[in-house]
Amino acid sequence: MPRTELEYPKEPYGTVKRYSPRASYALRTIHTIINTSTILHVSFNDPQSPFPTILPMLGQMGSFSRPSADEGDVLDLYLHGYVSSRLINISRQPSNTSSASDAPPSSPPGLPVCIAASHLDGLVLALTPNAHSYNYRSAVLFGHATLVSDPSERLYAMQLITDGVVPGRWEGSRVPPNKGELSSTSVLKVRIATGSAKIREGPPGDDRADKEDKSVTGRVWTGVVPVYQVLGEPVAGPYNEVTEVPGYLGEYVRETNAVTKEAAFEAARKIVVKKGGEDE
Amino acid sequence: MPRTELEYPKEPYGTVKRYSPRASYALRTIHTIINTSTILHVSFNDPQSPFPTILPMLGQMGSFSRPSADEGDVLDLYLHGYVSSRLINISRQPSNTSSASDAPPSSPPGLPVCIAASHLDGLVLALTPNAHSYNYRSAVLFGHATLVSDPSERLYAMQLITDGVVPGRWEGSRVPPNKGELSSTSVLKVRIATGSAKIREGPPGDDRADKEDKSVTGRVWTGVVPVYQVLGEPVAGPYNEVTEVPGYLGEYVRETNAVTKEAAFEAARKIVVKKGGEDE
Repeated sequence: MPRTELEYPKEPYGTVKRYSPRASYALRTIHTIINTSTILHVSFNDPQSPFPTILPMLGQMGSFSRPSADEGDVLDLYLHGYVSSRLINISRQPSNTSSASDAPPSSPPGLPVCIAASHLDGLVLALTPNAHSYNYRSAVLFGHATLVSDPSERLYAMQLITDGVVPGRWEGSRVPPNKGELSSTSVLKVRIATGSAKIREGPPGDDRADKEDKSVTGRVWTGVVPVYQVLGEPVAGPYNEVTEVPGYLGEYVRETNAVTKEAAFEAARKIVVKKGGEDE
Repeated sequence: MPRTELEYPKEPYGTVKRYSPRASYALRTIHTIINTSTILHVSFNDPQSPFPTILPMLGQMGSFSRPSADEGDVLDLYLHGYVSSRLINISRQPSNTSSASDAPPSSPPGLPVCIAASHLDGLVLALTPNAHSYNYRSAVLFGHATLVSDPSERLYAMQLITDGVVPGRWEGSRVPPNKGELSSTSVLKVRIATGSAKIREGPPGDDRADKEDKSVTGRVWTGVVPVYQVLGEPVAGPYNEVTEVPGYLGEYVRETNAVTKEAAFEAARKIVVKKGGEDE
């Protein structure tokens, strides 16, 4: 795919202010972090509450109008959550184009939301507490959420999200959903306004004064503890009657475990060329 | 500790609306989920932005005035983040007692924030996509964030957060921080208004019609894929001179790995007594 990588616009509210060499605005980077995240955190304002609210939800990015689009393309975020009834009720109110009083009148329909995904890749243990850090990949998206009313788009999103948990699971389960299942499922679609990613990898980086102090370096262990998520051996449920774990599932477990572990160790060992400035 | 467990008040904005048998308001449950979370997601409103903002941050709950308090006690949340400069600037503005226009005039000082922590414990694979779920432990807190100005409270919070990453790391590193380090570190303290937790464990729970359909149960594997975070073998950094991984670190890696794996498998196998209603 030899083409220019698309980037999100740098809006003031979406710009990474600190350690900006670690920031990325590339759609592909951001969408990949979102799509490989098992849990997304979705924030919105409930007019009844003095606080913003965060709900943990499931989501995947895709394009209903062009299903073949990949992660480098312009995509929508589809959300489905256990606890999203409040969010769904609020996004249903047509007047709720924005809960911030100073939003421009031209803002698109839907509830303004922020979505965050964060992968921890390692504990970075430096000589001083201040230089401690994490290796991580995090992404944040800003956009407007509306309820999906078209049944075929809802079906598309349900399959996208189910296959996002375990690829092939949709076909491997009892589908299509019946009428009751289809009508009881609420799916939110977020039209993305902008977003950004931040990635930190590599070993610790301390100040020179500490690195040259033998009384410190001789006593304090420095390095990275790689961190990764593992999928354990599948545990059959009480009414399971299929004796063998299906191929698509076993394969997904093995492949995911190999990739995430490798990525965490790779991040720990990465040689990072400093661009100057703080390295925390 | 034979005493009544404290609970957070059930405010309308903090009440778990769906599948409420899974909800908990116990301080001990909520604080434990927060304190064992490597990354917290913090949401706030930036008056310059039409969207709420989420930042991934590090945090630990504690009590500066009574350091011996445990997780069942009334505690404050101390936050320290790589990317918190925007949040810190906003919380510094004395006028910013609330960005929601309808906040009661009596609301405490500080920036209204929401903090979420979510642990994924398993992929729950049911007969139908609709009955799919996660095993998880999630918590959400609502409160007001202010900047900690007292240097000794900042020092307390820095140690609390550092030892939250790896217990014993504070003493195992070059401490105390020098003047420059102490003054350059910003710590936020969140006075908690309320919070809640939600926990799901156990095998899948499908509708009876699907469980009694042999053409479905004979074809679809059902059960749980346990999910847990692993700390890998520590990787020494380029200027490390301590040949042995220190005892507190090796021990923490081993113990954490044993506990988290065991918890994920235990959740997968848990027999859950249904209280009626949907089981998703």
